[in-house]
Amino acid sequence: MDDLQGASRFNRRAIKVDAAQRLVLEAALPGRVEMVPLGQACGRRLGEPLTVTCDWPPFARSGLDGYAVRSADTAQASPKEPARLRVVGTVAAGKLASATVQPGTAVRIMTGGAVPEGADAVVMLEQTAEALEAGLPAVLVKRAALPGQNIAQPGEEFRRGSVIAAPGTLLRPGHAALLGTFGYADVPVYARPRVAVLATGAELQPVEAPLAPGCIRDSNSAMVAALIEQCGGVPIQLGRLADEPEAVAAALEEAMLQADVVVTTGGVSVGDYDVMAAIIRRIREGRSETGVEADEEPANKLLFDKVSMRPGSPTSAALMNGKLLFALSGNPGACFVGFELFVRPALQRLQGSEPEASLPAQVTAKLAADFDKGSPHERFVRTRLYVHSGIIHADPLAFGKSSMMASIPDADGLIRIPAGSSGAESGALVEVVLLNNRIL
Amino acid sequence: MDDLQGASRFNRRAIKVDAAQRLVLEAALPGRVEMVPLGQACGRRLGEPLTVTCDWPPFARSGLDGYAVRSADTAQASPKEPARLRVVGTVAAGKLASATVQPGTAVRIMTGGAVPEGADAVVMLEQTAEALEAGLPAVLVKRAALPGQNIAQPGEEFRRGSVIAAPGTLLRPGHAALLGTFGYADVPVYARPRVAVLATGAELQPVEAPLAPGCIRDSNSAMVAALIEQCGGVPIQLGRLADEPEAVAAALEEAMLQADVVVTTGGVSVGDYDVMAAIIRRIREGRSETGVEADEEPANKLLFDKVSMRPGSPTSAALMNGKLLFALSGNPGACFVGFELFVRPALQRLQGSEPEASLPAQVTAKLAADFDKGSPHERFVRTRLYVHSGIIHADPLAFGKSSMMASIPDADGLIRIPAGSSGAESGALVEVVLLNNRIL
Repeated sequence: MDDLQGASRFNRRAIKVDAAQRLVLEAALPGRVEMVPLGQACGRRLGEPLTVTCDWPPFARSGLDGYAVRSADTAQASPKEPARLRVVGTVAAGKLASATVQPGTAVRIMTGGAVPEGADAVVMLEQTAEALEAGLPAVLVKRAALPGQNIAQPGEEFRRGSVIAAPGTLLRPGHAALLGTFGYADVPVYARPRVAVLATGAELQPVEAPLAPGCIRDSNSAMVAALIEQCGGVPIQLGRLADEPEAVAAALEEAMLQADVVVTTGGVSVGDYDVMAAIIRRIREGRSETGVEADEEPANKLLFDKVSMRPGSPTSAALMNGKLLFALSGNPGACFVGFELFVRPALQRLQGSEPEASLPAQVTAKLAADFDKGSPHERFVRTRLYVHSGIIHADPLAFGKSSMMASIPDADGLIRIPAGSSGAESGALVEVVLLNNRIL
Repeated sequence: MDDLQGASRFNRRAIKVDAAQRLVLEAALPGRVEMVPLGQACGRRLGEPLTVTCDWPPFARSGLDGYAVRSADTAQASPKEPARLRVVGTVAAGKLASATVQPGTAVRIMTGGAVPEGADAVVMLEQTAEALEAGLPAVLVKRAALPGQNIAQPGEEFRRGSVIAAPGTLLRPGHAALLGTFGYADVPVYARPRVAVLATGAELQPVEAPLAPGCIRDSNSAMVAALIEQCGGVPIQLGRLADEPEAVAAALEEAMLQADVVVTTGGVSVGDYDVMAAIIRRIREGRSETGVEADEEPANKLLFDKVSMRPGSPTSAALMNGKLLFALSGNPGACFVGFELFVRPALQRLQGSEPEASLPAQVTAKLAADFDKGSPHERFVRTRLYVHSGIIHADPLAFGKSSMMASIPDADGLIRIPAGSSGAESGALVEVVLLNNRIL
């Protein structure tokens, strides 16, 4: 019984998840940068450092509607004896003042207006009253204004030349405000990686077909395509292929021509029909796709063909024709975990994210229920997260079989149950990989 | 000094944030539903309940590669005396078995294959060895198989007719897997609301222009458009308008014709040039936009024109021609808060989200620094969030002026400092509104 079939057949050596992630991030390099209009930049990653183009604010700006005054003129003001200032002009937003502020005078100013020469404070409209001074317009100020009050000084928020955001930064709506302020009508961003998606398995039918006996519909392609979009990639769905190594190898070669990354689902285990396992093995053994011995070309290189984890241990990754190839499990739960742990970081890195920042964010959380299933391999358990009194709780979803699809859309994170442990007890602190686009 | 100008001018009555949100959610009703291909459904909200179309799995499915056996045949198996079963056929994925499993026999089966008649267990390939039995193929099984082992029974995961997701559910990649499995090649989703964006203010220049004296660039339109996209809406940027009530009123009327919602920025305070304040006042006073007295038409109705909050107290909302109009502050920080608290919930509700679920998620967190600024109004302070030992910490960004744009892209949430409080001390538990697309 020593010659167990799986072991003898493929001789795969499992590596740890962290090591596999490092190999992926070493192989994935930032792609090309392109210019897009500001309106299309959010959700993309910045391609070059962008800097502040002028001191900000560019002039002394009023923070509210009211009167620009000389604070010294109001030093003695009180509700009973308000300062009475002659109103000598107006500053509308976008215009310069019609007059400077001399002692004993004030200028009406709007929010965002340029504070006129002579003034060193702005008094809020609501704290003033209109009046007359020798038949001419005046204003009553009932409290002493402090020098600088309600004025944003030039350069107070930003200094020209300082960095707005570094390359690789994921641009958010707040960045749009900054880039608009500093005149970036076009923005350099990393190109969206093109990612081919290919499902293998003779049992797969298209989604729109009625079910034939023994068959199921290809649901992984739709899920993987949605995950790719979520990562900023452009999914290219290439459909389904039966389990024929030559046909699949040819389809992969073709896919590599039009895509930056190729993701396959299914066919990675040890079965007779596991076509992706066969193709990955060829790469491992240094044979080219055409069956001819390859030289030391690093364009074809195995990264890993087994990961010490549940679910998804046969998840594989390689370079093929210089492009990244991910062979994910056909089991939906394992496919999902494989994508989150390996494909998502690669797609972030291709868009300029720093290696460490490309990995999924991870937090500690308090386990809300016992998890009594140990495993010789690290286990990733889908979980809901909720917060109670400032503490994050992880409530595991459907412990059971990794094929259980029902809980995939409900998962906020993946609890990492360490290898060899006998599980974890309710109340224990556990590490949780956060899933994208999820808020607690 | 009783007749303070702001008060006398507009007589606005502040309402609390929660009350304002309720008014918005009462006025925003779910829009129309449209069909989109499965590949475009993620990120959209489901328009109709979708149900499971067949029991799942549809047949007894093998969970792995190995041999389908009768468990009784293996009851006495041990590593020293393995059960020896004759291999009478194969089940490839997508095919039915070539033979039934009679006592003393086994059938080779692949992951996902339909378990043949007669078999009640699947033994993992790695736990078997090939052998011969009277010169014919056989397999050695070294451990007793349990009945049902490695088999997913029909209907085990889903029952036909059960609900996959309710209307209003935000569709995620995991839903794509479920919808694909059950044959939903097209998916009913709520239409993306069309949202017109209009900036007011004579000081505003287009982003691409060099800065003129006293002027700034319109950065709010780009930020608001990006926020609208993030909410699933379609932004329609209508540009900038000077502070002329008739021109702005006409532009709004025009915008209402092509959009489901209109968002303006700027011009909501008490200044002489605050054009949106004037238009909102007309609605409050029941005058139509053309100056003619309106009847009791609920198509034009003030929701609120002052909110007891900082920043953004002049934030206003109304129905105009039956469409939602949000007049946000021109100050970027206040504009951002107004969008998150009022516009985002409205856009979620228009896409079928339940009223309560349309509000931004909120968690308690531990304050990581003193916040010593009290206020007569509830205050929303932008904050970073981080997790340490399972506890969420809120580290406030730039306390200062709400015009500070620098921290908007860095904010993970908004700390709610209650009205009238004198702030909050480091270590206190505070409520935090989570910002979209942020993970801790």
